[in-house]
Amino acid sequence: MKGVRFSGVASGIKAEGLDLGLVSFREAVPVAVLYTRNKVKAAHILYNKSKAAARVRALLVNSGCANACTGREGVEDLSVIAGRLAGHLGIAKKEVLFASTGVIGRRLPVEKVVAALPGLLAGLHEENLGIFARSIMTTDTYPKIVEETLPGGAHRLAGVAKGAGMMNPLFATMLAFVFTDYPIDGGRLRRLLPALGRQSFERISVDGDTSTNDTVMVFSGGEDRDADVGPFRRVLSSVMKALSLLIVRDGEGATKVVHITVKGARQKAQAESIARRIAVSPLVKTAFFGCDPNWGRIIAAAGDAGVPLDPAKVEIAIQGQVLARGGVEMPFSEDRLKQLMDKREIELVVDLHVGRAGYDIYTCDLTYDYVKINASYRT
Amino acid sequence: MKGVRFSGVASGIKAEGLDLGLVSFREAVPVAVLYTRNKVKAAHILYNKSKAAARVRALLVNSGCANACTGREGVEDLSVIAGRLAGHLGIAKKEVLFASTGVIGRRLPVEKVVAALPGLLAGLHEENLGIFARSIMTTDTYPKIVEETLPGGAHRLAGVAKGAGMMNPLFATMLAFVFTDYPIDGGRLRRLLPALGRQSFERISVDGDTSTNDTVMVFSGGEDRDADVGPFRRVLSSVMKALSLLIVRDGEGATKVVHITVKGARQKAQAESIARRIAVSPLVKTAFFGCDPNWGRIIAAAGDAGVPLDPAKVEIAIQGQVLARGGVEMPFSEDRLKQLMDKREIELVVDLHVGRAGYDIYTCDLTYDYVKINASYRT
Repeated sequence: MKGVRFSGVASGIKAEGLDLGLVSFREAVPVAVLYTRNKVKAAHILYNKSKAAARVRALLVNSGCANACTGREGVEDLSVIAGRLAGHLGIAKKEVLFASTGVIGRRLPVEKVVAALPGLLAGLHEENLGIFARSIMTTDTYPKIVEETLPGGAHRLAGVAKGAGMMNPLFATMLAFVFTDYPIDGGRLRRLLPALGRQSFERISVDGDTSTNDTVMVFSGGEDRDADVGPFRRVLSSVMKALSLLIVRDGEGATKVVHITVKGARQKAQAESIARRIAVSPLVKTAFFGCDPNWGRIIAAAGDAGVPLDPAKVEIAIQGQVLARGGVEMPFSEDRLKQLMDKREIELVVDLHVGRAGYDIYTCDLTYDYVKINASYRT
Repeated sequence: MKGVRFSGVASGIKAEGLDLGLVSFREAVPVAVLYTRNKVKAAHILYNKSKAAARVRALLVNSGCANACTGREGVEDLSVIAGRLAGHLGIAKKEVLFASTGVIGRRLPVEKVVAALPGLLAGLHEENLGIFARSIMTTDTYPKIVEETLPGGAHRLAGVAKGAGMMNPLFATMLAFVFTDYPIDGGRLRRLLPALGRQSFERISVDGDTSTNDTVMVFSGGEDRDADVGPFRRVLSSVMKALSLLIVRDGEGATKVVHITVKGARQKAQAESIARRIAVSPLVKTAFFGCDPNWGRIIAAAGDAGVPLDPAKVEIAIQGQVLARGGVEMPFSEDRLKQLMDKREIELVVDLHVGRAGYDIYTCDLTYDYVKINASYRT
């Protein structure tokens, strides 16, 4: 990416592997940010909100340590690191942004991070997005990068994200960064972002838990020169949606992604409540893992969403096969359904048949490996 | 139990094993009932509410088939069975109550149930509570019976329940029945029950899913003769709490019970929201399975409860050992904590330090066996 350089190193925050990534911008660029709605917010969020400028020249991201619940010290640690990094880069301290992911409750090893800065700086290169993407991974099984070009080819967008657990419908343990050489001013970028977040990162769920660290950042390519941001908006939306899907596909222990569509609702908010309730039901998620067309658990979750539901009108289809209509079972071949469900991507449609509103969300199955990963994550 | 006889048989609803239980009362007794809050309600709930009298003489319970989402036919099936059972017992059809548990979406095999009635009747005996308790089990690993005596010894209470999955803070896939020879009129019994339910069955959680079939029934021993129901109320409360604990201990795949206490809250409702949010967090539950004192996940769940929280005041203790105070980690021995957590019963206390209100709830851990049981329950 022209004017944007990336780097990543193993600083020793983790016992082994890449754990520190740096992005350096040639000029100060506007940035728009979305943060977790959790009442407990990581130090990087508190720091960025209070200390950083609206236009920045560096982003330092670490994995292996969430730097959350670390008190005032956790924020001061970032201040120390920002000073050192700014000195190296010859920029203002307030032009440094941070993001962290990993274990909650542990402070960053500041000396290790500071000691790693020269190596990080030495590695900066416009082509190094890949190593940056790997340096921010935790339980992710693959780096998550999406690159797209604006119509005409004059501008590019590159998105990077990490998942993969503690994902929740209203955000996720996720960090996502989008870089572009497309110039758009901060005000417009900030006005664009929330709606695009609702269409992408807020429509995925892994386990219904919300992280203290969730962060989405979109860095502009400079000041606005273009009156019509429509094409940019469409490509940004596409990149964010694609990153979301990469995250949910790599949900901890997941073997499949389930695309849940609730339609025929009176109101979109009701469709959303039902879709989200189904998306976090452990019973639904284990049934998908077992390729079990257990529509009873789906309708039970729908009925438990706290919104009106007329069971006698509900229709449920998996992979296009209707399992229930009018709230009762339709004849279907259990063997055929098991085959259709033995796929990486599953379509579940719940039609309430009382209106025209709808909502859709992506979730994954709940597997042995989810338990395995999370019963022993810290140690 | 004097005047109350029990029976259980294998009727063929399940492929094998006991699946049909009967309770017969010598005289028509008042009954108080709590049903699921799920919008999708099983046929037995719809039937009992519309067809049964306030005083009853028989209760027929089946396992292996929830008879939920079976439409009008599911309710009519019960009407047919009620007619046949009433004929056998020489009672009015409206004096028969039902409860069902098992797979959603399948109709009851009425002919098998009707064919099993003579055997059920032949087995009725005051000492047969055990076989009744076993006949209502699904994935339960043991029958759940609690018996207590009122002070003075003149009256007894016997409670029976089944769990064990789809348990949820606001109810559970659970059926619970309490029988007594203590005489109390229906009106008083019905006024007592909701508060006792809030103290017992509403304070357990296995997986956060709410069943379509949840039912609690308390059968009186006859009309009121005693002005002071205080002693009865205390013993009934004790029986209901004990049954609740039997259910959560037998949660699907559970290896341990976690007693979550949230205290120091400004309002009880806020403490409850936080306690319930922690109780359903898959990340917290897997950490307990792994004996991992991961207090970061606990505070993250607390922060995600949708109520005010000041992270800088939160104190978290497991088994009496303080892991975090003032929102940051306190020194503790990881090895010692792992030992303390390698128990069947765990105490977790979250002190918000902003007020004097509190709430407590029981949950269980999330294990490989939960996934195993639920990935293949239907087949």
